[in-house]
Amino acid sequence: MIYNAPVKEIRFALNELAELPSICSLPGYEDCSVDLVDAILEEAAKFAEGVLAPINKAGDQGAKWNADYSVTSAPGFKDAWLQYVESGWAGLRTPTEFGGQGMPALVALATEEMWCSANLAFSLAPLLTLGAVEALHHHAGDELKAVYLPKMATGEWTGTMNLTEPGAGSDLAQVRSKAVPAADGSYLISGQKIFITWGEHDMADNIIHLVLARLPDAPAGVKGISLFVVPKYLVNADGSLGARNDVRCVSLEHKLGIHGSPTAVMSFGDEGGAIGYLVGEANKGLGYMFTMMNHARLGVGVEGMAVSERAYQKAVEYARDRVQSRAIGSSDPAGVAIIQHPDVRRMLMTMRVQIEAQRALACVAAAAMDRAAQHPVAAEAAKNQSLVNFLIPIVKGWNTEQANEITSLAVQVHGGMGFIEETGVAQYYRDARITSIYEGTTGIHGLDLIGRKTFSEGGATALALLEETRLVAAKLAPSQPKLSANLTAAAREAERCVAFILETFKAQPQLAAAGSVPFLKLMGIVLGGWQMGRAALIAQDKLAEDGADTDFLSAKIISARFYGDHLLPQVSGLAAAILEGADSVLEMPENLF
Amino acid sequence: MIYNAPVKEIRFALNELAELPSICSLPGYEDCSVDLVDAILEEAAKFAEGVLAPINKAGDQGAKWNADYSVTSAPGFKDAWLQYVESGWAGLRTPTEFGGQGMPALVALATEEMWCSANLAFSLAPLLTLGAVEALHHHAGDELKAVYLPKMATGEWTGTMNLTEPGAGSDLAQVRSKAVPAADGSYLISGQKIFITWGEHDMADNIIHLVLARLPDAPAGVKGISLFVVPKYLVNADGSLGARNDVRCVSLEHKLGIHGSPTAVMSFGDEGGAIGYLVGEANKGLGYMFTMMNHARLGVGVEGMAVSERAYQKAVEYARDRVQSRAIGSSDPAGVAIIQHPDVRRMLMTMRVQIEAQRALACVAAAAMDRAAQHPVAAEAAKNQSLVNFLIPIVKGWNTEQANEITSLAVQVHGGMGFIEETGVAQYYRDARITSIYEGTTGIHGLDLIGRKTFSEGGATALALLEETRLVAAKLAPSQPKLSANLTAAAREAERCVAFILETFKAQPQLAAAGSVPFLKLMGIVLGGWQMGRAALIAQDKLAEDGADTDFLSAKIISARFYGDHLLPQVSGLAAAILEGADSVLEMPENLF
Repeated sequence: MIYNAPVKEIRFALNELAELPSICSLPGYEDCSVDLVDAILEEAAKFAEGVLAPINKAGDQGAKWNADYSVTSAPGFKDAWLQYVESGWAGLRTPTEFGGQGMPALVALATEEMWCSANLAFSLAPLLTLGAVEALHHHAGDELKAVYLPKMATGEWTGTMNLTEPGAGSDLAQVRSKAVPAADGSYLISGQKIFITWGEHDMADNIIHLVLARLPDAPAGVKGISLFVVPKYLVNADGSLGARNDVRCVSLEHKLGIHGSPTAVMSFGDEGGAIGYLVGEANKGLGYMFTMMNHARLGVGVEGMAVSERAYQKAVEYARDRVQSRAIGSSDPAGVAIIQHPDVRRMLMTMRVQIEAQRALACVAAAAMDRAAQHPVAAEAAKNQSLVNFLIPIVKGWNTEQANEITSLAVQVHGGMGFIEETGVAQYYRDARITSIYEGTTGIHGLDLIGRKTFSEGGATALALLEETRLVAAKLAPSQPKLSANLTAAAREAERCVAFILETFKAQPQLAAAGSVPFLKLMGIVLGGWQMGRAALIAQDKLAEDGADTDFLSAKIISARFYGDHLLPQVSGLAAAILEGADSVLEMPENLF
Repeated sequence: MIYNAPVKEIRFALNELAELPSICSLPGYEDCSVDLVDAILEEAAKFAEGVLAPINKAGDQGAKWNADYSVTSAPGFKDAWLQYVESGWAGLRTPTEFGGQGMPALVALATEEMWCSANLAFSLAPLLTLGAVEALHHHAGDELKAVYLPKMATGEWTGTMNLTEPGAGSDLAQVRSKAVPAADGSYLISGQKIFITWGEHDMADNIIHLVLARLPDAPAGVKGISLFVVPKYLVNADGSLGARNDVRCVSLEHKLGIHGSPTAVMSFGDEGGAIGYLVGEANKGLGYMFTMMNHARLGVGVEGMAVSERAYQKAVEYARDRVQSRAIGSSDPAGVAIIQHPDVRRMLMTMRVQIEAQRALACVAAAAMDRAAQHPVAAEAAKNQSLVNFLIPIVKGWNTEQANEITSLAVQVHGGMGFIEETGVAQYYRDARITSIYEGTTGIHGLDLIGRKTFSEGGATALALLEETRLVAAKLAPSQPKLSANLTAAAREAERCVAFILETFKAQPQLAAAGSVPFLKLMGIVLGGWQMGRAALIAQDKLAEDGADTDFLSAKIISARFYGDHLLPQVSGLAAAILEGADSVLEMPENLF
């Protein structure tokens, strides 16, 4: 179960594709430098490889719910969390004013990839805590911030998001949890929440729940949802922990994967009401949640890519070790390592190049986040925000959909051994399966992409990105004519699809929606191709330099070519489904299913 | 966890697409009639729905290995097996001379689909037993047949296949188990076998192991493998059970799915040698195994389709019940059943039409098997055998690869609930995952398809099938012009790929092999389209008849259209990968992975 953090690959994506040096020059990131980031990556790799990866398999045994409503973390997790806190990883992108290190999102993303590859279940504790920190940082009053943020920024306390209620799923209009004002300005919270990631555990001294609930006079629907802080233990004036609050974990879900991450059913107010504190203004909870959604969704996109990377590494290792069957066309009857069989090679390349493209796209999105947040020129910041908005559903949706396929290929490379749990690759397959569901299913992101992110802005960002893609394709023409042609053709198909969405979304939204997920996948493939093309161009240039890392750079070009031959041609089938297939999606009468 | 056997769909595939009446008129199948098969289907549906489906979830708890080397079947399984035996299902396609009912493979296939949908883990016990019966029937001497076949044909005793050894996988050249001749004409067998499905259990009085082993003077490689019968309990001259043989189950595998099916590590001869009996001639074991491979591989293709069907039914049920989010484009804020959301519709249709196509293709293959076995005209029998040989890797490979995708879509339709094991759909996703691995991975079938099944016969069967496909497309032109055009285009792409394989297979086998699995999938999609087109034509004709089942027949046409719009366009991407992408599969140096 070895994990080797792909530091060289990550560094290439950061420095070359996401242009880290330009991020380090943004106001607020003056302390960041390429050298510092290099050092961070080396340390993160050690932590991921040495601390998180070794307990991933034990984590699959799961956290344990106890009759006193406590939850015992999976073996090794508590100790790993303490090390995570002590090493200062928790505050990497938290503002320095709360004890964090204020690093760019791009840098944090690189470490998050490693945590997710090493131990997806574990990585969710930091992810949720960071989300809670972000929400409080942006929307809570100073008093709340002062009490909670410093301890959460260090990871001494963890955070959760309590959104979903039984039967309500992603539809937050249906939130029914109640918040009743108390005399002292606090609120009494009651209700039940489900699917609460790391909702209860024994790794940290306190757990700070962010909870969506309705005030007594709140309007119906999403405009009547407020956000509250509900700590597991109340905090005394001196910062010490006080009484246990009226909130408990009443059960844990039995899931397909990420067993090491306790998914809790949380009950608030069984004994009269959990004490909570209003974050920001009443009835604005939904907007506050949206603040952190881009980070959370990017984070889940990284999860998908990261578990794919881990599965890829395991498949490569097995394919090198496992000897079976003679080489095709060879007269020597001796078996060869299966990595020599063309179909195994095809599977490994299919995994590899998608991971490269996904990492690149996620890094480009994170860099745009940093520019949107810090760029001194308002127009540049706005342009980057549009880029973030457009890329997020693609990174979230495409990376995670492909994670199911990529981890499945990893199982397949293992043959019968892949189906045996001891082998370990089946865990990646199970763990990955949640990523295209939580933080919004792919269907939800598909709709977001065609509506708010494409139609609402007249396709501006989409078309600009496709124009960028065509430029890259043009530059590739002399050296990589086939890749260039495939990329140009794919961009053209994508443009036709954008035009279709612009035409149909308002008048016949059902037709646009019918192709929304195929469009999301198509854009993933095309924009992944944009990044693979850029990588090939950069690699070509660098190969001409003295002391070039020939192996690494040649591999980049080979990957791009495979991507062009095997991924980009899928675009035509997706485009046909979008452009010609909407009617048949809707045609079957409901009673005939 | 309701399962509704899709009797109407199955009947359509049998009667219309596989032309059951013509099978019933073959010599040897005189007792078979459409009416009798109707009655069989109704009874099988009752058994699958009422007996097998209800214990599927309990089966997921798994069989239990005990320290005395016994295995306790999952809850309810033993009783279900007894009912299966008593109801006479075990002998449905076993020759009447051994107490079976001698039904065509086509009819047996229809019942096997139901067993697999209802309870995949359970269905493996009959599948393996039938395989053993077939091997003995064709290759064992009369004495062995007389002792074993009658009890196996009824299911009183079950059968196993002991092929794989530790470290050897699908490469049977590496079999090392030994068989030493004893004075009485029997043999002493020793060695270890892994991945033995239903290798030990408590459902039947005896278990008859078919074991591949080497005689002391056997040549190396696959030409030195002999097949032996090794019963768990020796059989006395009067047919009663005698001493326990020297074979035991030393452990069960902990698997990703099909937990109800014990996968045993079997140890032969720990106490001096298990008594075994040679089947047929020495050193011909591999050929004997191949005899039953077509049935077994078709059976696994049916497994993939069948678990997909079960998952589809569950997804439809959930999509009808689950209310969430307003309808797109609607001003009514009230949530609607998610089956009304276009992307959910797209997922359900994607599942449905592939299942229809796969069932059709499997039935056509089974009918060809029956014709190959029983047709009085030798040329017709031979032609059908070629058809069987060509279709088997496609049905096995394509149905099972898509089962991973289809069951994944079923999870996706369930959103967060899909990831919770109690919901049940995750079990289908886990269970399905083995089907593209056992009985030969998709990679092995891809190679079989391009080599023995395409190149070796100059592409004759492939091109004949594509010509059939073009004829169907031509007939569709007036009524379904878009489907017709897509089918014609897909057949043309497929022909280009066949030509590529014929050109490259001998001179540059690596290039042909690089596209072997994409070619298998491409042929699955195209030949599935052939069947969907035939179904649409038949449905159109029948709709004009008095008393036509309008709903059912209209749905057939809608399914075919969706297939044309969404599945057939994928062919161009696959063809591009095969024709233009072989070099980049092979280009990456092994050390750079």
